Amino acid sequence: MAEELSFPTGIGTSDPTTISLLGQDLAADLMGKVGFGELAYWLVAGRRPTPGEVRVFEAVLVALADHGFTPTAIAARLTYLSAPESLQGALAAGLLGGGSRFLGVTEDCGRFLADTLAQAGEVTDYDAVALDAVTRAKQERRLVPGLGHPVHKEQDPRTPVLIRIATEEGLHGPHLRLFEAVGRVHPQVLGRTLPLNGAGVCGAALADLGLPVEMLRGFALLARAAGLLGHLAEERRRPLGMDIYRTVDRNAVYEP
Amino acid sequence: MAEELSFPTGIGTSDPTTISLLGQDLAADLMGKVGFGELAYWLVAGRRPTPGEVRVFEAVLVALADHGFTPTAIAARLTYLSAPESLQGALAAGLLGGGSRFLGVTEDCGRFLADTLAQAGEVTDYDAVALDAVTRAKQERRLVPGLGHPVHKEQDPRTPVLIRIATEEGLHGPHLRLFEAVGRVHPQVLGRTLPLNGAGVCGAALADLGLPVEMLRGFALLARAAGLLGHLAEERRRPLGMDIYRTVDRNAVYEP
Amino acid sequence: MAEELSFPTGIGTSDPTTISLLGQDLAADLMGKVGFGELAYWLVAGRRPTPGEVRVFEAVLVALADHGFTPTAIAARLTYLSAPESLQGALAAGLLGGGSRFLGVTEDCGRFLADTLAQAGEVTDYDAVALDAVTRAKQERRLVPGLGHPVHKEQDPRTPVLIRIATEEGLHGPHLRLFEAVGRVHPQVLGRTLPLNGAGVCGAALADLGLPVEMLRGFALLARAAGLLGHLAEERRRPLGMDIYRTVDRNAVYEP
Amino acid sequence: MAEELSFPTGIGTSDPTTISLLGQDLAADLMGKVGFGELAYWLVAGRRPTPGEVRVFEAVLVALADHGFTPTAIAARLTYLSAPESLQGALAAGLLGGGSRFLGVTEDCGRFLADTLAQAGEVTDYDAVALDAVTRAKQERRLVPGLGHPVHKEQDPRTPVLIRIATEEGLHGPHLRLFEAVGRVHPQVLGRTLPLNGAGVCGAALADLGLPVEMLRGFALLARAAGLLGHLAEERRRPLGMDIYRTVDRNAVYEP
Repeated sequence: MAEELSFPTGIGTSDPTTISLLGQDLAADLMGKVGFGELAYWLVAGRRPTPGEVRVFEAVLVALADHGFTPTAIAARLTYLSAPESLQGALAAGLLGGGSRFLGVTEDCGRFLADTLAQAGEVTDYDAVALDAVTRAKQERRLVPGLGHPVHKEQDPRTPVLIRIATEEGLHGPHLRLFEAVGRVHPQVLGRTLPLNGAGVCGAALADLGLPVEMLRGFALLARAAGLLGHLAEERRRPLGMDIYRTVDRNAVYEP
Repeated sequence: MAEELSFPTGIGTSDPTTISLLGQDLAADLMGKVGFGELAYWLVAGRRPTPGEVRVFEAVLVALADHGFTPTAIAARLTYLSAPESLQGALAAGLLGGGSRFLGVTEDCGRFLADTLAQAGEVTDYDAVALDAVTRAKQERRLVPGLGHPVHKEQDPRTPVLIRIATEEGLHGPHLRLFEAVGRVHPQVLGRTLPLNGAGVCGAALADLGLPVEMLRGFALLARAAGLLGHLAEERRRPLGMDIYRTVDRNAVYEP
Repeated sequence: MAEELSFPTGIGTSDPTTISLLGQDLAADLMGKVGFGELAYWLVAGRRPTPGEVRVFEAVLVALADHGFTPTAIAARLTYLSAPESLQGALAAGLLGGGSRFLGVTEDCGRFLADTLAQAGEVTDYDAVALDAVTRAKQERRLVPGLGHPVHKEQDPRTPVLIRIATEEGLHGPHLRLFEAVGRVHPQVLGRTLPLNGAGVCGAALADLGLPVEMLRGFALLARAAGLLGHLAEERRRPLGMDIYRTVDRNAVYEP
Repeated sequence: MAEELSFPTGIGTSDPTTISLLGQDLAADLMGKVGFGELAYWLVAGRRPTPGEVRVFEAVLVALADHGFTPTAIAARLTYLSAPESLQGALAAGLLGGGSRFLGVTEDCGRFLADTLAQAGEVTDYDAVALDAVTRAKQERRLVPGLGHPVHKEQDPRTPVLIRIATEEGLHGPHLRLFEAVGRVHPQVLGRTLPLNGAGVCGAALADLGLPVEMLRGFALLARAAGLLGHLAEERRRPLGMDIYRTVDRNAVYEP
């Protein structure tokens, strides 16, 4: 069967003499002229960011790149131990932990804030909107994304810094404002004071940059890819995977 | 069994008030002050790069981020089609194609050049060293990594640009010099003229930055992660996966 | 810090002379005495199945092993093309498509039936329960899992056969009964007649075997692992990946 | 551009009324009539196995399904902890550890034996061939695959049982004979006595079944998929991932 095929894309195409990316000439217009974070933003948003947007965006990627021996970092190291010839497999195994419970908070928080703002219409009083949203979440027994952290129980050090950077760049928009309001009002609803966590503030900042909330997890994954490469480079120089594995295995106890 | 455990790491640790990354205070010293590419370099190399090193490094990441509808981009889109709720799965599926035949060239080329230089000792005549290495490769029926490209049959547009950027930054070192020499001398051994490809020149440039050759594939993967996010964001807005899948499926022919 | 660690498991443990699996002596009691499907059932359910349960279970695995050039099969082949040295990466890439839209139907259907039965209490009239459930699904604009198939628009050939096998083995239980009732009553609610699809009947049959509904996707993945190995073995002997990739790439059209 | 496409496959095709698998009618001829292990064999080998071959093959799959808290099982559990909504991601993460150092032994051993036999031509004295092969391996500083085990230092309990099963089924062929000869002769070359391990004997048995050595890792992965599902089902019922993660994290020590 003869057929006409056409696969349209605005990402990349090439011919014998040129490589195009995002409608630009990759070699002539992008290499050496656009930063890597800037390119990642452009690829997902479909528009080139301003220098201020790049600074906030890269601050988010830096904030999310690593958080020590997370489950994802350990999974990547163990996979590297088992299959050291396949760095891509170890990296992929680590990224596969980028789901709902750890890295997912960034996206969940961005979506929560975006949905709340969409329902609220024009906002004059962020505290009132936040109070309403937190109250509804509590009634529906949903967690408010971005609140609380197992380690940073009082304050997550990333939160005020990212808010300051966004403010410096004139990018302190409605999502961050609402997120801060959540930080002020939630104690009167929940009966205790929780910190605004780093993953959450990153989601708020990314949403203020106009990035699509459905892709926010993607940026957390990109950031974490760099952190995982750091772990894997260290694992190559000074292995821990065997020690972690043996620690678990020698303390195994049969229990049906 | 009571035991003393200790898992040393120079990547990241945290306590209730601080997050450390690479021995720095993440919030106070890194966020907003270090770029994302810069951080990725630092994480793997264990030292902060200079601005010139960052420029070359980010040019490499930009060069490797995408090459259109590669097998990895298609695999990521098809996986997203099947499991759109798991962006991390689609990204991981794409990265798993970062193996020997496509993305692996960057690492293979860096290693080939580094091994050749290590055997050669002090080099005064790069063409002679290259001639020897290409001749041996031919005798042993090994391919010379970084030579040839299925699309860019005459010249890969990325190659001269990256060499120029490295030169501008004073980072045109022995690996790039040897790679250029391979470009000059291989026709007399192989009997035909092949272009120095983009993946290869990226490997040479990364090796000149002093990055460990065993980790070069990792940078290709990091770069590709950004490109794959671009494909997945586009797939979300304007899906192609179903059309690709159906194109294959409707042309299936049973043949034992 | 000295600490007592204990990681309890009923799956496997070993010492210098013995390997235990599920509390059995692997070498003495399992190898050559238990089938592979039987073992997979036992591992997940925590109890050894009867021969009849094994027959139904293996019929499900056979039914779900392959469905031609699915997105998952194509993704696995493309990943193998890019990284042929890493069979595990190609298999993993294929399995990562085992999400909500394709393989997920088995689990979704099992859960839908189990939830409906849990709410209904003791059932005397399956058609009434099915009618109520389909009506509610329609009102809430949810799809009824297990209904309809893009290719098998009239009848999915797997459905009657699996029902027959379950009946032969005395394992035609409430989930299959309810599923059949859905097949009878949905036209009066939805206004058109859809076939009961194979993924759905497999979910119903697995639920009737008493397997936990949260793990049903796992069996679909295990089945598909065998099918993917078939595709990858064929890809090694008679490659298609390059042809698929080029078909897409040569028909790429730039469109912002 | 109108084009003729054709993607030949002997695995699976379907039309509105039929699903074909391996040239058979899936519903009429395979479901309920072929076991799952049997189907996996058929898919990879391209021919239906005999009952004896099935018994040996399933004994191998049972032998390789699990080995307690392996790095792959831990990686799968940690990934499930992070992303419990994506069972496919946790399974894939576990399988990605199926590389050279752990699961790869099965394939490496099968290939070592097959290569040795191919070079030896017709064999009358297996001990002489084994002695020669082990001696060469030692000279070239290569490990002999299938020798030695970190836990089972004297004897791996799986080895004699699999040899017995293969013998019972008349499938004790040249690869197993050569493997046993390696067990007899290696002490005189290596100066110490190592056990023939379970992964190795499985590779020998699979090679004697005529399965392609390049796919042997695939069977180890299929077997392990079942074991990983067992771990994940247990992780769902009685989670360990958080405890493993915290054990590592609370013993992290910063060391540049």
